[in-house]
Amino acid sequence: MKITKPTLLLDEAKCQNNLNRMKAKAVNTVFRPHFKTHQSVEIGEWFKEAGITNITVSSVSMATYFASHGWINILIAFPFNILETNAINELPIMVEVFLTVESVETVKHLGQNIERNINIYIKIDTGYHRTGLAADRNNTIEKILSEIENYDNLKFTGFLAHFGNTYNAKNTLEIKHIYQDSLRIMQTLKERYYEKYPQLIISIGDTPSCSIIETFEGVDEIRPGNFIFYDLMQLQLGACEEQDIALALACPVTAIHPDRNEIVIYGGAVHLSKEFLIKHEGIKTFGKVVELNETGWSKSLPDTFVSNISQEHGVIKTTTEIIKKIKIGDIIGILPVHSCMTANLANAYFNLENSLIEKTRS
Amino acid sequence: MKITKPTLLLDEAKCQNNLNRMKAKAVNTVFRPHFKTHQSVEIGEWFKEAGITNITVSSVSMATYFASHGWINILIAFPFNILETNAINELPIMVEVFLTVESVETVKHLGQNIERNINIYIKIDTGYHRTGLAADRNNTIEKILSEIENYDNLKFTGFLAHFGNTYNAKNTLEIKHIYQDSLRIMQTLKERYYEKYPQLIISIGDTPSCSIIETFEGVDEIRPGNFIFYDLMQLQLGACEEQDIALALACPVTAIHPDRNEIVIYGGAVHLSKEFLIKHEGIKTFGKVVELNETGWSKSLPDTFVSNISQEHGVIKTTTEIIKKIKIGDIIGILPVHSCMTANLANAYFNLENSLIEKTRS
Repeated sequence: MKITKPTLLLDEAKCQNNLNRMKAKAVNTVFRPHFKTHQSVEIGEWFKEAGITNITVSSVSMATYFASHGWINILIAFPFNILETNAINELPIMVEVFLTVESVETVKHLGQNIERNINIYIKIDTGYHRTGLAADRNNTIEKILSEIENYDNLKFTGFLAHFGNTYNAKNTLEIKHIYQDSLRIMQTLKERYYEKYPQLIISIGDTPSCSIIETFEGVDEIRPGNFIFYDLMQLQLGACEEQDIALALACPVTAIHPDRNEIVIYGGAVHLSKEFLIKHEGIKTFGKVVELNETGWSKSLPDTFVSNISQEHGVIKTTTEIIKKIKIGDIIGILPVHSCMTANLANAYFNLENSLIEKTRS
Repeated sequence: MKITKPTLLLDEAKCQNNLNRMKAKAVNTVFRPHFKTHQSVEIGEWFKEAGITNITVSSVSMATYFASHGWINILIAFPFNILETNAINELPIMVEVFLTVESVETVKHLGQNIERNINIYIKIDTGYHRTGLAADRNNTIEKILSEIENYDNLKFTGFLAHFGNTYNAKNTLEIKHIYQDSLRIMQTLKERYYEKYPQLIISIGDTPSCSIIETFEGVDEIRPGNFIFYDLMQLQLGACEEQDIALALACPVTAIHPDRNEIVIYGGAVHLSKEFLIKHEGIKTFGKVVELNETGWSKSLPDTFVSNISQEHGVIKTTTEIIKKIKIGDIIGILPVHSCMTANLANAYFNLENSLIEKTRS
């Protein structure tokens, strides 16, 4: 395939490395990767070949997509949307479905309307404060547990948390502390309910802490997703090395401005998303720039970054030296700030052998 | 249709008002609306019914989409990507194609490889500094003009600018000043080349200035796009009223946190985009909140806004009074920060009669 417009390239070898590294750490813990990052049945096969059978998704639509391609143990890690109860009923009969709840109302609605067996995680907030119940809300937790028991086809699986506050950490030490403090909260909760529910598990798993922590002692299940691709945000957090980043958006150069060392590419917010990082002194970056080559791409070019982005345009700031080598019609690669967002915007990936890798879109 | 997941609602009457208002101002100027905002053949029909025949798009893919649905006068307002020359050759033969260039190399490549007649605008930078040639770069402009003359099937149409710096203006007065200063630059340029090219036109058209300016005296062509939907960014700029905003994302409520006056909705960055505005003191907002009703939606709720967003989750900050009235399973509306981004993420729109309005996606 000749690239003529923004095209999302995927380095499968990097994905396999990322997958193997995470899998090797996940001993004595269930590895239930989050598939919202790639949204691809073909990439899902790589996980299947690595022995993965249980997966996580973030919407009923994604559950339907993966279920229709043979996945039979699916957790929808999102506060269950009761309006989609019918869609859950319609999932293939052989699929074991796991839902996340945090209110009695949701359990009641499920119990009264669901027509299959459902496994239920209670969502716990360990400090991120996006959603979930604080671990000390015993009263609500017990009401939810007792509501679950009112229905034969609902079963309590355990407690689930996303330590998303690791994304705001300043360094890897802070990520470790967030992990340890949050895990302690989850373990205390497990101890509290263990006697009554000896099968209960705790499920955690953001990519920053899962990448940095060396062993998952005392963790029953991990659910990282982003690690399969990584990105500049994870690099900045210290969760990966640049060489682990498995996605690059290939973009044609359409204009060159040597007077201000800027290059305009066809590749904008509809390809990369509007996600940015602050480099320093308030300077935003929407991506790093790499050279594409036969075997993938180079290290990121020094002092070169996507400084601005609009619907289809990307503007790259670079150096006098680099700009001299770039011509209109060249194709350059952009390492994304947030690979989940960039991947979601693509219709498909292309691997380094130029084969299309299918995916869905949210 | 019963809404069960994030659904992009479109108020056609508001679109028609926005269209009629802009069209009424566009006397003695060609109104060539930008279709990148809606990316919809059906919405395109509303423009056709209003007498519009010439359109603007921002990619060759969009040109192909609209050309395949009967549009025969299409400007691709993006520094032409020479790698897509074949796709231009393949557009239906009856389509009159307008491209934007800003380098001799691009014109040369076009001249040598194009197999149809092409009309060429030279892209001018009047102060936005995204791309384009500064108006005083006579030497380059003349080289481009003389390169165009080397090829029988290339024809110079005129000068094109996007006054995108209006988006950074602090108030409507500043927008007017940017408009006047930028227009003067374009008019001076026209005067300079008018003798040699008496047919040459100047083409401008960002939504902020096109909405605020009362008459387009001395402007040959305008190309606003966003005005068909408007959004919170345009509202903040003073380019529209809240009642003009024609899009709202309908989102199910999935969790409620009365302890901190927060509601969690199914509706995140994959639906709204990561675009935000700064409310005050660094507080970000990703959308305003409205109540949906039989005839559309209410005014935005006071002290209520989307305060955080991740892949599928939206977090709404609200008041003690409002949160009491909201239940899990309710559907609420979000007015988007940037309708072009939100629309691009949707597979389709739904009008207030619950009919699907088709669109494409970048």
